[in-house]
Amino acid sequence: MATDIKPPSINALAAPLVDRLVADAEVLRLAVSHEGGARMVDAGSQVRGSIEAGRRLAEICLGGLGTVTIAPSGPVASWPYSVVVHSADPVLACLGSQYAGWSLADETGDSGFFALGSGPGRAVAVVEELYKELGYRDTADSTVLVLESGSAPPASVVAKVAEATGLRAEKLTFVYAPTQSLAGATQVVARVLEVALHKAHTVGFDLHAIVDGIGSAPLSPPHPDFVKAMGRTNDAIIYGGRVQLFVDADDADARQLAEQLPSTTSSDHGAPFADIFGRVNGDFYKIDGALFSPAEAIVTSIRTGSTFRGGRLEPSLVDASFA
Amino acid sequence: MATDIKPPSINALAAPLVDRLVADAEVLRLAVSHEGGARMVDAGSQVRGSIEAGRRLAEICLGGLGTVTIAPSGPVASWPYSVVVHSADPVLACLGSQYAGWSLADETGDSGFFALGSGPGRAVAVVEELYKELGYRDTADSTVLVLESGSAPPASVVAKVAEATGLRAEKLTFVYAPTQSLAGATQVVARVLEVALHKAHTVGFDLHAIVDGIGSAPLSPPHPDFVKAMGRTNDAIIYGGRVQLFVDADDADARQLAEQLPSTTSSDHGAPFADIFGRVNGDFYKIDGALFSPAEAIVTSIRTGSTFRGGRLEPSLVDASFA
Amino acid sequence: MATDIKPPSINALAAPLVDRLVADAEVLRLAVSHEGGARMVDAGSQVRGSIEAGRRLAEICLGGLGTVTIAPSGPVASWPYSVVVHSADPVLACLGSQYAGWSLADETGDSGFFALGSGPGRAVAVVEELYKELGYRDTADSTVLVLESGSAPPASVVAKVAEATGLRAEKLTFVYAPTQSLAGATQVVARVLEVALHKAHTVGFDLHAIVDGIGSAPLSPPHPDFVKAMGRTNDAIIYGGRVQLFVDADDADARQLAEQLPSTTSSDHGAPFADIFGRVNGDFYKIDGALFSPAEAIVTSIRTGSTFRGGRLEPSLVDASFA
Repeated sequence: MATDIKPPSINALAAPLVDRLVADAEVLRLAVSHEGGARMVDAGSQVRGSIEAGRRLAEICLGGLGTVTIAPSGPVASWPYSVVVHSADPVLACLGSQYAGWSLADETGDSGFFALGSGPGRAVAVVEELYKELGYRDTADSTVLVLESGSAPPASVVAKVAEATGLRAEKLTFVYAPTQSLAGATQVVARVLEVALHKAHTVGFDLHAIVDGIGSAPLSPPHPDFVKAMGRTNDAIIYGGRVQLFVDADDADARQLAEQLPSTTSSDHGAPFADIFGRVNGDFYKIDGALFSPAEAIVTSIRTGSTFRGGRLEPSLVDASFA
Repeated sequence: MATDIKPPSINALAAPLVDRLVADAEVLRLAVSHEGGARMVDAGSQVRGSIEAGRRLAEICLGGLGTVTIAPSGPVASWPYSVVVHSADPVLACLGSQYAGWSLADETGDSGFFALGSGPGRAVAVVEELYKELGYRDTADSTVLVLESGSAPPASVVAKVAEATGLRAEKLTFVYAPTQSLAGATQVVARVLEVALHKAHTVGFDLHAIVDGIGSAPLSPPHPDFVKAMGRTNDAIIYGGRVQLFVDADDADARQLAEQLPSTTSSDHGAPFADIFGRVNGDFYKIDGALFSPAEAIVTSIRTGSTFRGGRLEPSLVDASFA
Repeated sequence: MATDIKPPSINALAAPLVDRLVADAEVLRLAVSHEGGARMVDAGSQVRGSIEAGRRLAEICLGGLGTVTIAPSGPVASWPYSVVVHSADPVLACLGSQYAGWSLADETGDSGFFALGSGPGRAVAVVEELYKELGYRDTADSTVLVLESGSAPPASVVAKVAEATGLRAEKLTFVYAPTQSLAGATQVVARVLEVALHKAHTVGFDLHAIVDGIGSAPLSPPHPDFVKAMGRTNDAIIYGGRVQLFVDADDADARQLAEQLPSTTSSDHGAPFADIFGRVNGDFYKIDGALFSPAEAIVTSIRTGSTFRGGRLEPSLVDASFA
């Protein structure tokens, strides 16, 4: 394992996916407009959007470094249609691109707009601490951000992104869909691998040792209420998600990762997310962060050949959440 | 959900799929010829064809508005290899294109030829009542029809299609495969979502409310006898098919749809289709129309977030039919 | 079934797949270099490679005549992520291209290099007896071979391939990955359909009668030890592999094929492959050849419509091997 490979440009890889998304707007039921000079793609707010739109959003979020597919069976038998995510470079794809880590608030206007930016644009702006650890920065002539949001970002947010990326607004595309929409629900459930990577990072596992990864989780049925919709997308992962990570680590580290990775390690594990959210009166920060991870983890060490497992699927909690 | 999206041209979307089918004729074991000026693609009559050819025929039938894949597991454990159909616009894809609704008989010749036309050409001809309800009409420089047939349509049928579509015969492609062939069996089972849409229409559900849909059913093993072959493709759907529809409807309507959709509502439910067909001495019109629908229906209302279920898989009847 | 279709050029079909593999080297973590004039693609020796690289290697091995996908569920529940192989022309794809049948040893140098060549280049060289039976020979301006090997072939092997194919070294691409790597393990498990074809050939079944085929097997976790890694890839197929073949044969022949095809027919069946290998002190030729075949075979006669089954999955032996 001596040769280091130069990491690819996630913006170069994602650009043709964005072009195709826009070209297929009618097929996917998306609306394309412009605001503050930037291109806005509505994938589920004033339009119906689609599961397929959400699948494509997820592949854009992954910076072109992974595939997202819809399968007829998966971890939970009673909700058979499932999302599958696979990346040959899960750290860069999920943490370097897909993770919704860029806080985008309307600070100058009065729109009250707030969303977390996801996708390749983050790696151009590199305003997050995380990029120091990843040691990755991308350059691009144009870029894209995906937002879990019911409205397009206002001009002040466009200007903020333009400044941080050093790109004119005309070179920016924002794709947004609320959690309540088909596309929104799909692209959030497609974070089943990303939350595993994020938790691996949180528990201090060496990110450079994560070599490959696959995840799956049931398609979350959209709900018109934001808290319930968010609860379902979380539950799809927390109680119905399964990941397999391939790591270049010794057995002790791989075993520990398998034990620490799943949502079962959380003191909040055991109830649908919306119920937990209600218990803490909607104060996100009172929820144990360890909850945000897949139900089941399979960790294979390519260094030793051993496989370790942690957590367990909770189909009845998925039923309770989705019903 | 305010913005209306202009529907796409299913002929424009299907055209590159037809070009690729013809370009890959050798790989898929198809024979391309010309008859009455039109291009004829034999996918299973005088050639062996293939499951992959059937998969591609199905995507052409869907007017480029959906994907058809082969999965290693699905609704029926003993027949694991399954067909999966997904469309972001199931009404237009399935009813406006895939539904075999255009009656094409040789009225002037003596060939006895009869087939039901399926695919994007129907939306150019718009000779069926259904198009009034769909409010859709497509224009195209060239078009394609897929026929479940053991022979190419004769010159009189080509002329009929040319006249109805306003296109010269040279601009028409007919792709045909008998039910007994691999491609024929595959493309018929890929109607698992379409029969659900058709039944939703029959029971009076508002088509405009159907937003997204996925279906799966086991690959039906071909049989050299037409009635048995037809029986198996029907049974794959009737006893082994599962669909999930996403509808913009209130709970009462979504629940009723879930109850009315599956094949269990039919008085003829409970025996392999070929047996039922024998009981009525081959008189199709004596079979209860409610039988032609998937075994299991999952209906999710995106308006309320509720999911309703109806019907049940009948693996032992699939076994009885396929054995 | 009268019309014979001219077989396609597997080299023409594979060439764009090889170009894309090389173009995506950074994404797939591959290293491209040159040796003896030929292009060398390291997919898992001095680089980490990836499961996706192995999937692509497998599609190159199949000569562009089949698809290889990663599914979230498959034959073995405890190892859910699975490889699926499907070809509309399994004989040419698997035996005419994918089979590792060309013995490539360093005969003039002292490197000790030995590998079995797989892929479209075999059909240009046609040095194997098998091609007489297949009645297939391909011509190409350039070609590719895939090697299950931890090192690039030395100049003497490049020269040997150049001579046998009649192509200059500059026109050759060698893609190699050791069994211990992610890509190596993946591309070997993707032989689940090929070993079925090979065994069908061995037991004397008429190859021309095999019309279509699908296979699946669990992704084998890599192991750093060669024997254990090889054992796991074999066990994935022998105890966890399932194929369905569609044959143009009468019932007696189809039934016999289903009985003869699976690994259960072997006297060595019943222990992880690495254990069997140890019992014979690593002498490959003492292992019963009948072992190298999928666990479960489903054989459907398209001539009679009957389906026959043989063998059985052995999930506990897969667990014993992979654990």
